[in-house]
Amino acid sequence: MSLLIRNVLLDEEITDVLIQGRRFTQIGPDLDVRADRVINGRDKAILPSFANGHTHAAMSLLRGFADDMELHVWLQDHIWPLEARLTEEDVYVGAKLACLEMIKSGTTFFNDMYWHLPGTARAVEEMGLRADLSLVFIDFQDKQTADRNWAKNQELYAACRACSDRIRFVLGPHAVYTVSRESLLKLKDFALEKNLLIHIHCSETQKEVQEAREQFGLPPAAYLHELGLLGPNLCAAHCIWLDQEEMELLAEHRVKVIHTPTSNMKLCSGSFPYERLKEAGVCIGLGTDGCSSNNNLDMFEEMKIASLRAKDRSGDPTALPAGEAFAMATQQAADIFGLEAGRIEEGRLADCILVDLQHQRLVPNHNLISNLVYAANGDCVHTTICDGNILMDEGVVEGEAEILAQARETAERLTRDSKFEIG
Amino acid sequence: MSLLIRNVLLDEEITDVLIQGRRFTQIGPDLDVRADRVINGRDKAILPSFANGHTHAAMSLLRGFADDMELHVWLQDHIWPLEARLTEEDVYVGAKLACLEMIKSGTTFFNDMYWHLPGTARAVEEMGLRADLSLVFIDFQDKQTADRNWAKNQELYAACRACSDRIRFVLGPHAVYTVSRESLLKLKDFALEKNLLIHIHCSETQKEVQEAREQFGLPPAAYLHELGLLGPNLCAAHCIWLDQEEMELLAEHRVKVIHTPTSNMKLCSGSFPYERLKEAGVCIGLGTDGCSSNNNLDMFEEMKIASLRAKDRSGDPTALPAGEAFAMATQQAADIFGLEAGRIEEGRLADCILVDLQHQRLVPNHNLISNLVYAANGDCVHTTICDGNILMDEGVVEGEAEILAQARETAERLTRDSKFEIG
Repeated sequence: MSLLIRNVLLDEEITDVLIQGRRFTQIGPDLDVRADRVINGRDKAILPSFANGHTHAAMSLLRGFADDMELHVWLQDHIWPLEARLTEEDVYVGAKLACLEMIKSGTTFFNDMYWHLPGTARAVEEMGLRADLSLVFIDFQDKQTADRNWAKNQELYAACRACSDRIRFVLGPHAVYTVSRESLLKLKDFALEKNLLIHIHCSETQKEVQEAREQFGLPPAAYLHELGLLGPNLCAAHCIWLDQEEMELLAEHRVKVIHTPTSNMKLCSGSFPYERLKEAGVCIGLGTDGCSSNNNLDMFEEMKIASLRAKDRSGDPTALPAGEAFAMATQQAADIFGLEAGRIEEGRLADCILVDLQHQRLVPNHNLISNLVYAANGDCVHTTICDGNILMDEGVVEGEAEILAQARETAERLTRDSKFEIG
Repeated sequence: MSLLIRNVLLDEEITDVLIQGRRFTQIGPDLDVRADRVINGRDKAILPSFANGHTHAAMSLLRGFADDMELHVWLQDHIWPLEARLTEEDVYVGAKLACLEMIKSGTTFFNDMYWHLPGTARAVEEMGLRADLSLVFIDFQDKQTADRNWAKNQELYAACRACSDRIRFVLGPHAVYTVSRESLLKLKDFALEKNLLIHIHCSETQKEVQEAREQFGLPPAAYLHELGLLGPNLCAAHCIWLDQEEMELLAEHRVKVIHTPTSNMKLCSGSFPYERLKEAGVCIGLGTDGCSSNNNLDMFEEMKIASLRAKDRSGDPTALPAGEAFAMATQQAADIFGLEAGRIEEGRLADCILVDLQHQRLVPNHNLISNLVYAANGDCVHTTICDGNILMDEGVVEGEAEILAQARETAERLTRDSKFEIG
């Protein structure tokens, strides 16, 4: 399959872009080539699609279910009881809704941590995105639970080898306060042996840091360092309450940090030390977190909120400028996750979007990146391409109505049951 | 002209809504009536449309023109030189783009302060929204400039009486540091005599407050009180750096306060004291500010960012819940501006939107208001109605392509000239 995009805006020039198989193969004006399909790129710009660095996709089913609450009320009385009843089929349905939303807003990769991983994997296979998938690993220091988790992870590791190479299996120790030292060490060794990414929540709340200091004598990132987990294969989400030494450790060990500004604000987690981490040399990506704490998966919004918040908290209107926000969501994210994507260049994987320059939010076009970060939203995306395949064609994703109907039905059933139980 | 919306979701019930002339005249299930036009409301919810409490509409032409800069560099080197060259025709073109964007994202009223008011008035007349329009009044303590401004305002007051009653003339003293005491007193008397609203920027930056203390011996709101300007006809935008006494003064005199969270964050203006103003009993609306400091006019985003920021700054995840954010953008705003709108009720003006419940961001629908505030964006709006007229019909606004083409052309000319001048 080959695809030729004619006369599209790329870095302020009008050009043609040829995709053959999974990759960009030729870029230049007036290409003298034929292709199975030609897209007219007039009034469109081509850009790398987004990578959502931290989410829990199937939580799309819980969108708007429990907002504006104290954290422990939210989790203990609403989210956890409902999650406990989720089946693999529910997770499949929720992940499909999430994939639909991501495709519609220009995201083609996400880094996920959730229950019933095979449900999410099935959704990703069908919807055509890329994803790094991990199962939530929580043992609460209990040996039996740890063993069960461990067995499950080994099984999933094997099962994911049968997936398409758009899906990679990742280890997902939830956080230092929910996973025992023994399990963390075991996961570290397994990750090294099998060359796997480890995805963890780290230093999200002040409480987490206080408890880590009490329990381990060290704050979370320093504790992970003591255990030997810091390395280029560790992806740490949130990273808010770090001390200076921890920031330097993260930089030194080339740990990947994912910033989740909307979730941090909605849950009052604290203020991400963007400037200090950047100065320390840490590579930073961007994530939406799950739909219970956002409540959408739109990376355009996430870029804007990241930039606004960095400015607001630092008092410096030049902080986290549009170009940096865009890089965090595209090329830096590709570097973090080792994807050969994130840039529109010959040889790279054809993961890209066409945005509609006729969308009223992108007019006038003094500066496209500023417009994308500060003015646009997901609906400015016209076409979404991943791995050389068109996932959204002129705003239309195949099977959309059915995905929405299934999600609605599943969510209603889940919360009906939940009301019954709480009542 | 009559319009019947059949089987639409209103406050968790499916009902019919009849609009005759400018107003809602009957609301109830299975209405036994005929109408000139019937809209199928299935899979739609009807809600009051938004009121944007503070903006500079024609600045849409400057969207993305100068971002990520220090405030004085931004204003002095970029915004002001360009604004100085704007003509009435440019403002008309920019305001049309702004009206288009507002209609598309469900806003039907805006409170504006800008140059060349007749340009904006013409755009509003043509596009069918409501607006309160003021001319920026700045005299920098110069008598001649004050006189010129004064004459211009009297002339515009007379001219606006010939406009449709969707447009109201408002007085727009820019701020206490740009308008002399004499002019402020004169405008106050004129407002009382003619029953006009006064729209002012107040306490936006710490610098403004410091200078007011030095110059007048009082912070801005207290100084306005001394001059007798505080009253129910004063609409004060920003109101960030207020002391406790000023908050009580604003409450006591029923001054209307407009919160502009995105602009405050982007320009690092400071933290709006939402909880304290609410406790003091102040009526608060919501505004986007102009497209140079936002960079769009989407009230959905503004509601979300207002809520996120209130939570973030207070450390309380229950602060500014979805229902309060929605009220600030609809019914509270209608009360502030004395519009007989803001609610879907018989007898009220038919200013409303239909949102598409099939939009992936509104699925599932556990809580519509949470979904609208935290998950939606302007593109969830399917139909926009103002004064009983359909301004957007199934996503389509008449004349859209021409408005965009004119805006693009005007913006390009303005910045081309600007580069020449700066260079």
